[in-house]
Amino acid sequence: MNSLDSLKSSIISQFGTPCAVIDLDIIKKNILRAQKICDAAGVANRPHIKTHKSPLLAKMQIDAGARGITCQKLGEAEVMAEAGIDDILIATNILGAARSGRLASLQKKLPLKVCADNHVSLQEYSKAAEAANRPLDVLIECDTGQKRAGVEDPKEAANLVQSIIEDKWLKFTGLLYYPTLQGWDDTQMFHNSLTKMLDDLKVKAKIISTGGTPNFANIGKLEGATEHRAGTCIFNDMMMVQDGFAQLADCGFRVFTSVVSRANENRGILDAGSKTLTSDTGGLNGFGHINEYPEASIIKFSEEHGFLDLEDCKMKPSVGDIVTVIPNHVCVAVNMVDELVMVQNNTILQTVPVAARGMLV
Amino acid sequence: MNSLDSLKSSIISQFGTPCAVIDLDIIKKNILRAQKICDAAGVANRPHIKTHKSPLLAKMQIDAGARGITCQKLGEAEVMAEAGIDDILIATNILGAARSGRLASLQKKLPLKVCADNHVSLQEYSKAAEAANRPLDVLIECDTGQKRAGVEDPKEAANLVQSIIEDKWLKFTGLLYYPTLQGWDDTQMFHNSLTKMLDDLKVKAKIISTGGTPNFANIGKLEGATEHRAGTCIFNDMMMVQDGFAQLADCGFRVFTSVVSRANENRGILDAGSKTLTSDTGGLNGFGHINEYPEASIIKFSEEHGFLDLEDCKMKPSVGDIVTVIPNHVCVAVNMVDELVMVQNNTILQTVPVAARGMLV
Repeated sequence: MNSLDSLKSSIISQFGTPCAVIDLDIIKKNILRAQKICDAAGVANRPHIKTHKSPLLAKMQIDAGARGITCQKLGEAEVMAEAGIDDILIATNILGAARSGRLASLQKKLPLKVCADNHVSLQEYSKAAEAANRPLDVLIECDTGQKRAGVEDPKEAANLVQSIIEDKWLKFTGLLYYPTLQGWDDTQMFHNSLTKMLDDLKVKAKIISTGGTPNFANIGKLEGATEHRAGTCIFNDMMMVQDGFAQLADCGFRVFTSVVSRANENRGILDAGSKTLTSDTGGLNGFGHINEYPEASIIKFSEEHGFLDLEDCKMKPSVGDIVTVIPNHVCVAVNMVDELVMVQNNTILQTVPVAARGMLV
Repeated sequence: MNSLDSLKSSIISQFGTPCAVIDLDIIKKNILRAQKICDAAGVANRPHIKTHKSPLLAKMQIDAGARGITCQKLGEAEVMAEAGIDDILIATNILGAARSGRLASLQKKLPLKVCADNHVSLQEYSKAAEAANRPLDVLIECDTGQKRAGVEDPKEAANLVQSIIEDKWLKFTGLLYYPTLQGWDDTQMFHNSLTKMLDDLKVKAKIISTGGTPNFANIGKLEGATEHRAGTCIFNDMMMVQDGFAQLADCGFRVFTSVVSRANENRGILDAGSKTLTSDTGGLNGFGHINEYPEASIIKFSEEHGFLDLEDCKMKPSVGDIVTVIPNHVCVAVNMVDELVMVQNNTILQTVPVAARGMLV
């Protein structure tokens, strides 16, 4: 029995399948790599914890040199703050959470950095800061091509900054960008234009943040950028492999899953479906890569079944075999489980709670 | 303020958004409707709890006349058994869970009904039953067109039944079918052929189970069927509306979500993305129906953003508005949250734990 087979036996007897497994050595390497990329570009590293949702892993990132963390939800920030992390940027309009009073409660405990692209958010942030009796640091979210959240026009950004300046409970802290892979020149133009307007307002952005693991290819290209926030790079996934950022060996998250049915020569069923790996294709074909049978395709999911097409496989798995799957999109797969099993050298070390899993608010 | 507006205010202040909300009156009506459909067809109702994963709702179904419940995972069955439900069918090869010893532990507590489509599963079931010192009731899963799990040939089914008969720890209990909508004639042919073989083996299937909410249209068509297992009908969703089984007013699950950004005239962003509603389209366009803005489309998700296309809307939502979304596929959306907020007449009654959420094994 080689050691992967031995690990599979341990996983099946201690946890059963499907089971979400992370590899400590790969993760350590990935954390270090991200830090080095940021260091080389001269920007601070503020990893996005939406990928792992685990205080333990966030602390490993901070220990490796990260300035702080990025969260996407207030609930994630609450979990991270509870674990002792004190430099937290929430990278979105957190309107639905702000109005519940939870933003004020957390701001009372520690000074947060929040983002806005509209005046309604600013008003809610002001109320929350007043309730907390502590001014809130606000970044303006700017859209330069993703067509997601973010102001599309530097003038709108400047207008929001003006409102922040006029509000005693808000402090203008910076600008949040998420350039598209091809959109860095546009982002620079937007940023230059906005910077002139900020000069006129006599304020300066302390934090100028760019984002995304694929954007490591462009890090440092935005003149003035001070920080980068990347999430996926701690684990990597098939999107990152497709993108060229990672190799299969750099993928630190795998789902161990059993072949539970082999109805005929070219078909099989895994005990992992859309409730394990999610229906998120990440724009790729199929629903993940099977390490042991790279020619096999997961062509379809039902909730608890993965449909295998084995036509191109010379060797085919048998019922009872355990295979390991790298998901297309790891961030959503991690969010399906309450804990990760951490291994090193194919030996189980511990379970890691996905403590901020399901923090929708 | 009308009462839905009042409910929205309560939701935002007590929970924030996004928030998964169920409506007790609609659910009661849906439970009753499913029971009546089964009663009228003369088959027992064994609802699939994968949709709600909640003992409280399972007990409502049993109180309304259901014979027992169907689970898809051993972990779901553990939760339901713990809550006192004692007639449980697990409708899949539970190989990865069986080998962890958990099947034996649960079988020691109460007699389960399990399914198999292969000899490996039977061997594991036999071991688990012996460890529990209680024979296991086994159904053979038969595939008549879904091309998922299940034997494709009646002879294979009979062969597995033969093995069950020869195993002192296994009891042959029945047959599990999941006909396609158009596949009921094929299922009948399969079943007739298999029934003859079972006659030769001098055994009789006590349970002959069909499945699926859309298949309520066909219930009773399989001569010999004794039970039906449907899941989605307790809540309904846009797939069921598309299918014609339900109207919008029959949809008892909604996600309350805030409009958090309106970057331009025709775009908007919700605070619910793929980590709330999932990337499961259910084969429909877009990612759910917005009750307040039926002409709006949710055209894309990122993890925590829903991308709104508002081009076809005459009235458009503003930042801060709360809208209610019926998901395309409710079973996967419920599985994202740890609790549901139950309302009646637009008043919050209680939270309902999704106790079997994330029970992958």
